[in-house]
Amino acid sequence: MLCDHDSNGIVHMELPVSSPFHPPQRTLMGPGPSDVSPRVLAASARPTIGHLDPLFVGLMDDVKRLLQFAFQTKNELTIPLSAPGSAGMEAAFVNLLEPGDKAIVCQNGVFGGRMKENVERCGCTAVMVQDRWGDPVDPEKVAEAISAHPDAKVLAFVHSETSTGVRSDARLLCGMAQSAGMLSIVDAVTSLAGIELPVDDWGADVVYSGTQKCLSSLPGISPITFSPAAVEVIATRRHKVQSWFLDMNLIMGYWGEGAKRAYHHTAPVNAVYALHESLLMLEEEGLGASFTRHRNNHLKLVEGLSRLGLDLAVSEPWRLPQLNAVVIPEGKDDAKIRRRLLEDFNLEVGAGLGELAGRQWRIGLMGSSSNQVNISRCLTAFESVLAS
Amino acid sequence: MLCDHDSNGIVHMELPVSSPFHPPQRTLMGPGPSDVSPRVLAASARPTIGHLDPLFVGLMDDVKRLLQFAFQTKNELTIPLSAPGSAGMEAAFVNLLEPGDKAIVCQNGVFGGRMKENVERCGCTAVMVQDRWGDPVDPEKVAEAISAHPDAKVLAFVHSETSTGVRSDARLLCGMAQSAGMLSIVDAVTSLAGIELPVDDWGADVVYSGTQKCLSSLPGISPITFSPAAVEVIATRRHKVQSWFLDMNLIMGYWGEGAKRAYHHTAPVNAVYALHESLLMLEEEGLGASFTRHRNNHLKLVEGLSRLGLDLAVSEPWRLPQLNAVVIPEGKDDAKIRRRLLEDFNLEVGAGLGELAGRQWRIGLMGSSSNQVNISRCLTAFESVLAS
Repeated sequence: MLCDHDSNGIVHMELPVSSPFHPPQRTLMGPGPSDVSPRVLAASARPTIGHLDPLFVGLMDDVKRLLQFAFQTKNELTIPLSAPGSAGMEAAFVNLLEPGDKAIVCQNGVFGGRMKENVERCGCTAVMVQDRWGDPVDPEKVAEAISAHPDAKVLAFVHSETSTGVRSDARLLCGMAQSAGMLSIVDAVTSLAGIELPVDDWGADVVYSGTQKCLSSLPGISPITFSPAAVEVIATRRHKVQSWFLDMNLIMGYWGEGAKRAYHHTAPVNAVYALHESLLMLEEEGLGASFTRHRNNHLKLVEGLSRLGLDLAVSEPWRLPQLNAVVIPEGKDDAKIRRRLLEDFNLEVGAGLGELAGRQWRIGLMGSSSNQVNISRCLTAFESVLAS
Repeated sequence: MLCDHDSNGIVHMELPVSSPFHPPQRTLMGPGPSDVSPRVLAASARPTIGHLDPLFVGLMDDVKRLLQFAFQTKNELTIPLSAPGSAGMEAAFVNLLEPGDKAIVCQNGVFGGRMKENVERCGCTAVMVQDRWGDPVDPEKVAEAISAHPDAKVLAFVHSETSTGVRSDARLLCGMAQSAGMLSIVDAVTSLAGIELPVDDWGADVVYSGTQKCLSSLPGISPITFSPAAVEVIATRRHKVQSWFLDMNLIMGYWGEGAKRAYHHTAPVNAVYALHESLLMLEEEGLGASFTRHRNNHLKLVEGLSRLGLDLAVSEPWRLPQLNAVVIPEGKDDAKIRRRLLEDFNLEVGAGLGELAGRQWRIGLMGSSSNQVNISRCLTAFESVLAS
């Protein structure tokens, strides 16, 4: 096998021609994907059936019910989109916004910047509320933006910033949107099943997530939920949604309540099997128990990192238990250390993203990855590579 | 288990709460998904690794090479999009077209109509070339449209119309586009690995497909290839691509040749494992052998159907061997027969789509589904249900 390292410390290997791929058993403690349990992998490998098969249609109903449970919502339009979380983000914006609309977008990391891209590509104006990467969204700045732009249709923010490990006060922000008569769009890609995400209680309008974070299912699907107010806006649009693939008016014909299950696209059948199994596991554990597990394991990890002299980058009240941003100590070689963790310990941790590249690591404790064995493995590995 | 039948003959069942889903072993002879081999299912259930893991990056290179082989192309930008074929279609249009552009769109079934939707949602004009559903695209009408609209940027058509079982003359149509200085967009969702698809030889510019047809991999990914001319157009756009998720300028940073493998979205890792395995199987069999197998099995099926008094809807030279459109005999109950095939024989065949609903069945012989056992099973099942 040929290897070389590029300037990012990423190893490129050429596989031999026509050889089956047998991945190693990594410990996935980056920003996702997280460790997928054998139970979920086994479910995903069950025989493929048709996307219009009555048995698959029955499964779809069960997946919708389980997603409502996970999102803590009664929203009828609560479904898995057949594409990753970034398509979930796009679905939120292209369905709610029409050309000429204005959206207030809070940015305190990479993903707020993507929201801006999405707003502008809809032919709309993004009013940006900027906060330092590593801080939560500042509600006072949001209040100012709302009072300066009362005509904005949408207030969008990231609940769990995967690039910085920061939580923002979603309850407060959704309430502010509601009071101002705006719709809220909440990025909860890293939140779902890891920390409280009571969609109805917050009065959130569109909330999207991913399957490869705290659900620990296969990457590739975006669970998303729309409030009745959001559905009303989508149903009464003046222009067609610019994306045919993500047009909820069409997707509702396949996934919607009492729908005729009209063909729209071929659902990723086996990925839906996997999602279903991961949601069953969540239901068995219980939402509250899952949140407590994520919280307790986070505290254990932080304690251990502190013994190794590693500091967290985020102030305590706003830390995400499922994604720990760690300051890279002065003089340590980021890429070399991550490479050693991967090659010698089969351990993946995340690099810093965007302006935090080279300055932070991101250690995930998401879903199935959030357990005592992984914490011990991670601490042992860091102790070893930092000492050498 | 509660069941009821709706007006389409689709059975809705309520699953018991919180029960794992164990699908039956269906024989998939509809318009896709096709039978996924145990080898591909096993590959898909291997341990998930990170989408930026050097080993995954190596796998990506091998998948690209194998897709170039399957598409018979040297196009560098030949990748699997992380979403189904309908997203592949959208990627083709949103990347090539800019607001105000004009595209000639050939429609002879459902999917040409989707192309029109895509063109219009890009803020562009679709010049439609209509043919009867069940006929191939008429090159004379296309020539007329080209001479009436020499300013069109794109000529788009469906090579294998999945809704009607009809092939069109892609070589001729791509040549006409090239002579007129237009870019060609070719829907090859049902073509890839089933019939000749020599992308470079045709001079096709953007060709997209799906994984769940003649590749017999898991549904959810769209292989797509862009000619150097198409890449040049995308790289020199005046406006940003309206879809962030499908913007090839961004996706090239992750999948592109010599790219830094910059994070764009989380790839559907396990679905890529499955795709890789299915492409290895195709390479082992050989493209020519796969085409011959599809052709021979089609002839056997047609012979058997004819003995049962069932006629094909498409004239012989334009029949797709991988998708056989069968005329429903007078007085036979479409939904009831498909339900009996499914419930009594675990056999899925496709209903008619759009204006052909209730008038035709679509019997697929795609990829792993194209074999003698399936043909016998299908003929036996039809013989039984038609007799009663």
